[in-house]
Amino acid sequence: MMLINGQAGQAIDARDRGLHYGDGLFETIAVVSGRPQLWTLHLERLSLGCRRLRLSLPEEMLSEEAHGLCADQAWGVLKIILTRGPGERGYRFSPGRCTRLVGFQPAAPYPIRHYREGIVVRLCTTRIGLSPALAGLKHLNRLEQVMARAEWDDEYAEGLMQDANGNVIEGTMSNVFALIDGRLWTPSLSQSGVAGVMRRFILERSADLGVETHEAPLSLEMLRHAQEVFVCNSLIGVWPVSRIEDAAFEIGAVTKRIMTEVRPYSLMP
Amino acid sequence: MMLINGQAGQAIDARDRGLHYGDGLFETIAVVSGRPQLWTLHLERLSLGCRRLRLSLPEEMLSEEAHGLCADQAWGVLKIILTRGPGERGYRFSPGRCTRLVGFQPAAPYPIRHYREGIVVRLCTTRIGLSPALAGLKHLNRLEQVMARAEWDDEYAEGLMQDANGNVIEGTMSNVFALIDGRLWTPSLSQSGVAGVMRRFILERSADLGVETHEAPLSLEMLRHAQEVFVCNSLIGVWPVSRIEDAAFEIGAVTKRIMTEVRPYSLMP
Repeated sequence: MMLINGQAGQAIDARDRGLHYGDGLFETIAVVSGRPQLWTLHLERLSLGCRRLRLSLPEEMLSEEAHGLCADQAWGVLKIILTRGPGERGYRFSPGRCTRLVGFQPAAPYPIRHYREGIVVRLCTTRIGLSPALAGLKHLNRLEQVMARAEWDDEYAEGLMQDANGNVIEGTMSNVFALIDGRLWTPSLSQSGVAGVMRRFILERSADLGVETHEAPLSLEMLRHAQEVFVCNSLIGVWPVSRIEDAAFEIGAVTKRIMTEVRPYSLMP
Repeated sequence: MMLINGQAGQAIDARDRGLHYGDGLFETIAVVSGRPQLWTLHLERLSLGCRRLRLSLPEEMLSEEAHGLCADQAWGVLKIILTRGPGERGYRFSPGRCTRLVGFQPAAPYPIRHYREGIVVRLCTTRIGLSPALAGLKHLNRLEQVMARAEWDDEYAEGLMQDANGNVIEGTMSNVFALIDGRLWTPSLSQSGVAGVMRRFILERSADLGVETHEAPLSLEMLRHAQEVFVCNSLIGVWPVSRIEDAAFEIGAVTKRIMTEVRPYSLMP
């Protein structure tokens, strides 16, 4: 089921700048019991992205379409794409036009062993670019993630990406947290990466739980010596990490506590 | 006029990975007297890009469609987009599918003063990312160029972009050359940038002309003290640069010689 500028449809204008340049943003949202989860956080991130890219956000229409599309759905994924719309040739744009896609897809549950036993994570050889102009945004330029994901088939549940300096930034489709000396670290995203909604939710909830958090560059060496590691996104919720290459991790108390917090707002079983 | 997978059309599948991830490549080609110019070089770059992105190149169909579409056209632009086609949710892909767009648009001539007097070039504040996985490719992830081009209206004909280290990489839509101590320098593109077809043509032709060329990192300071500067792409051919901020340049003998070489293969008046 997909709405394109409010109308049921399956196709977009071939001149759309989303196709030609990746000139747009997206959100991927868990739908549980008829409602898009963490809607306010998703909308805030989209709004922030629109300000940085100088896109206008059709907030009320999006909200109406998203909630309408999900109302009868028990469990699945809502994807929103907002582009700068069809354009003339060239990078230059005129303000005002945009294309919005709102689509719902039912989703199969993720394997329950991912949550119970933790996942094995690959260290990707594809590096994530240093791009301060785009850092933090969930934009449509995702080729690095596509290339990183092509490094494996089913041997891993996720792959971690480092930047050119060797800092760990994120998973191909998730953010990463590590418990180091009692603090919950997550990489700072000022030079690359996507500022995930679930990442933000966990940072905020951790503060409420009295778990100290820290956003800072995270080296692979630090990560390897962490007491607990997990990855997160809006759909999977939290997957504990049991192994990254030859470094093994337990599913510890902090991870379990965060999983309990996240469960109702994600597609966690 | 546009062909989508060989059929006249105006719309693409909204699930196309070109839209969702910028998962594809493109070529922009000058059409003169019914023929796409520098076709072999364009196809070679596309082929190289396909190998790096693990896309299959429908070479014969593309060639047939491109030449057919241009046959009755005197002057204009051929744009080819090749994407990984419609996909399921997620970055992972299966081999084999792709979407090809081949479109022709008549083009107005560029202002003749750009060629006679040279252009004034902006130094963009938007930096180009360091992304070795994608460097050199003419891929669909072009948000940095969109943001850089949004820095001005009509005050400049082009804007130069630097990487995070301050090296000059390219224009928003062109490559850059500078005559420094008798050698024709152009930035190396191992960490970012697009390896332009006209850039390659000029490098090859310069060798034939006995002009020594050099691909290496190019600092802004070196560029400011160059004897001649020009930008190039497949459509504009060569635009001499008369000014970058407070640094002024003459249109010298080497630039004029290169312009003569390039004219028949571009949209130069």
